[in-house]
Amino acid sequence: MSGVVQPDLELAATLFEALSRATRRGVGIVRDSYGDGEQAAHDIARAAADCAGLEVSVDAIGNLAMTLPGRDRSAPRIMIGSHLDSVPQGGNFDGAAGVVAGLCAASALRRAKRVPSCDLTVIAIRAEESAWFDIPYLGSAGAFGLLDPSCLSTPRSDNGRSLESILKERGFDPQPIRERRRLLEPSGIRAYLELHIEQGPTLVARGLPAAVVTGIRGCKRFRHARCIGEYAHSGAVARRDRRDAVAATVAFLHHMERLWQQHEEAGADLVLTSGELYTDPRMHGPSKIAGETHFVLDLRSLSETTMNAVADEARAAAVRIGDRYRVEIDLGVASDSPPAALDNRLRARLMSLLDQPFEMASGAGHDAAVFAQLGIPSAMIFVRNDNGSHNPHEAMSLDDFAVGTQCLLGLLLNFPL
Amino acid sequence: MSGVVQPDLELAATLFEALSRATRRGVGIVRDSYGDGEQAAHDIARAAADCAGLEVSVDAIGNLAMTLPGRDRSAPRIMIGSHLDSVPQGGNFDGAAGVVAGLCAASALRRAKRVPSCDLTVIAIRAEESAWFDIPYLGSAGAFGLLDPSCLSTPRSDNGRSLESILKERGFDPQPIRERRRLLEPSGIRAYLELHIEQGPTLVARGLPAAVVTGIRGCKRFRHARCIGEYAHSGAVARRDRRDAVAATVAFLHHMERLWQQHEEAGADLVLTSGELYTDPRMHGPSKIAGETHFVLDLRSLSETTMNAVADEARAAAVRIGDRYRVEIDLGVASDSPPAALDNRLRARLMSLLDQPFEMASGAGHDAAVFAQLGIPSAMIFVRNDNGSHNPHEAMSLDDFAVGTQCLLGLLLNFPL
Repeated sequence: MSGVVQPDLELAATLFEALSRATRRGVGIVRDSYGDGEQAAHDIARAAADCAGLEVSVDAIGNLAMTLPGRDRSAPRIMIGSHLDSVPQGGNFDGAAGVVAGLCAASALRRAKRVPSCDLTVIAIRAEESAWFDIPYLGSAGAFGLLDPSCLSTPRSDNGRSLESILKERGFDPQPIRERRRLLEPSGIRAYLELHIEQGPTLVARGLPAAVVTGIRGCKRFRHARCIGEYAHSGAVARRDRRDAVAATVAFLHHMERLWQQHEEAGADLVLTSGELYTDPRMHGPSKIAGETHFVLDLRSLSETTMNAVADEARAAAVRIGDRYRVEIDLGVASDSPPAALDNRLRARLMSLLDQPFEMASGAGHDAAVFAQLGIPSAMIFVRNDNGSHNPHEAMSLDDFAVGTQCLLGLLLNFPL
Repeated sequence: MSGVVQPDLELAATLFEALSRATRRGVGIVRDSYGDGEQAAHDIARAAADCAGLEVSVDAIGNLAMTLPGRDRSAPRIMIGSHLDSVPQGGNFDGAAGVVAGLCAASALRRAKRVPSCDLTVIAIRAEESAWFDIPYLGSAGAFGLLDPSCLSTPRSDNGRSLESILKERGFDPQPIRERRRLLEPSGIRAYLELHIEQGPTLVARGLPAAVVTGIRGCKRFRHARCIGEYAHSGAVARRDRRDAVAATVAFLHHMERLWQQHEEAGADLVLTSGELYTDPRMHGPSKIAGETHFVLDLRSLSETTMNAVADEARAAAVRIGDRYRVEIDLGVASDSPPAALDNRLRARLMSLLDQPFEMASGAGHDAAVFAQLGIPSAMIFVRNDNGSHNPHEAMSLDDFAVGTQCLLGLLLNFPL
């Protein structure tokens, strides 16, 4: 394959609009993993694949494969895609842009009557956002038989229903997860490509439409951290007698921020966030000392060593500060996604295809990490996006999307491996 | 009046049980100001007053007066009482103990056929807990025409309905509040006495059943403080680019705690509490940087100067720390209850009536502060209480209650003024 083929941008515009229309709930987008929102997005992608003449199949846990047949159908395939779920009140592009890019590329190749040397499979992966089920990379890790079977009892965060019961209700089959059975063979995959909006402000600040990704930060997340003190009257209990859960949580999080600063000054790659922090609204009263807080602590780094060191420091600080405030700070169990390196040859080829070549690390996790950790050559393109991600105000222009998608299409037309 | 009269403790036990039965909701007590819970408590008190042969009247805003007639009915009366509302999920004794003590004392005097020199009015005051309407001392300040008429539009904190509409629905009359009209004349009150559970651990720690109160801490409360930043992806935005509302709130509250420590070390009387602190649950997602927090900041001191200085320091810190974190920390308007001194002669007499005399300041506000600030000689007795107050686990023994009530009854039998 060679020569000029343009991605099918009309299809992209149609799909983004259809996705927004079907899954907007109030201000933001809600494509709940294995819920109605995600399913609506899968239905839209599947219909587009049918129209584009791709072969469609759905695996046992709901991942959607849309294949443009290649000349050698038994050769390892190239996969291109991303996820179709979103966080609660998220935006229209996080995840969906990668699936739409794959469909635009496959549709363009088919319309240009370019038959690739191997199958090209656009994959819409399930449940990448652990906001709904606290399981990193549920859809892709599940496809590779990598999940711990106990994850089937994980409750959906908002309604408490188990993953297993929801899979069954949707007509999917939890059995492969229970048996750690592979639905996808790594040896059958030549490469995995993923386009994703940048989730930070770097490309906006630099005035660049797209970037090649060097690697993906790992994440350790204490999702269910708590501080247990004792409710009391705010006016009537002296500082030394208090077991104030808010004061202790504030001291702990303040300590963690200072620690972050120290690691940063020492040159380590690290981000540290508590995006949820709350006292119990049923116990609220303005004259109360809080007896309980709940919070999330999220650590990310390109270095597993840094991640582990900071997690150890957090556990030690929880004990020390808990003692000082006469409360219990219980961080709970951390979920764990290791960092992932992306393929050097694919990165170099993608760089050569950009007019303004630029590389950057991914601070957020992506399904590409799962493929890369299995030794599958993997690459990612970031597309400029305003206002960050995981919020209703994600803003990606179709022009920037075209730059990223054209870059991937260029790679497909001259595949280096 | 002189000689041994015992408070009617059988009546006390009956009333505490009836109050608990009628207003327990799950684990805790809910006697919502001007709601069904408070009304149920008023109905119980009124029935007890009828049985005890007291004269009953209800003022335009619902305060319940239960009077044992004295020899000179035109002489200024002695009032004894407290409030009958509770915080959400509070305990059975905060407030109610003072009304029950008044009823036990009046019932004992009547049964002993002791006619006081002036009227003795047991008062069950409305809406002392500002958890429901953010108005300090709503019932007692309202009775003295001290409320700003604009308070009638204050929303009830949980359902948003205005004070005015709720007053009308209960059959009360907002007009006196609108006209700042007095329902009680300070010149007609010879003294105000209030028994209340201690809301801290001092009496438990010292092994004392009761104490005389020296004064009442004032309170400045920023009830609706907010921090507005920007939602973003936790992995993808560097520290210097973040507008993290949780990080800024943590830094602000940590700063305030250090300030508290400094004031304490300098010998100032001060307590400082944030008992409510929360990110928006509709925007929760584990990979999000929080764009908004809500919190309460509650300052209390026996010194108005200290309170004002700390409030000024809080406002300055909000601006400074907001700038540093690129967020807006908006403390909003503070509600304000000045500190109050209690009557020296009444304090001395009460001290002389305790087997183990002990005096202490009240960290929490009480209706007695309103009477005292109007120049009405006022006094308070604290009764030992385990587990603090404003929580379902308040625990006052009937023996300790008897010590406090006997002390008040002793004062009534030999009134010094």
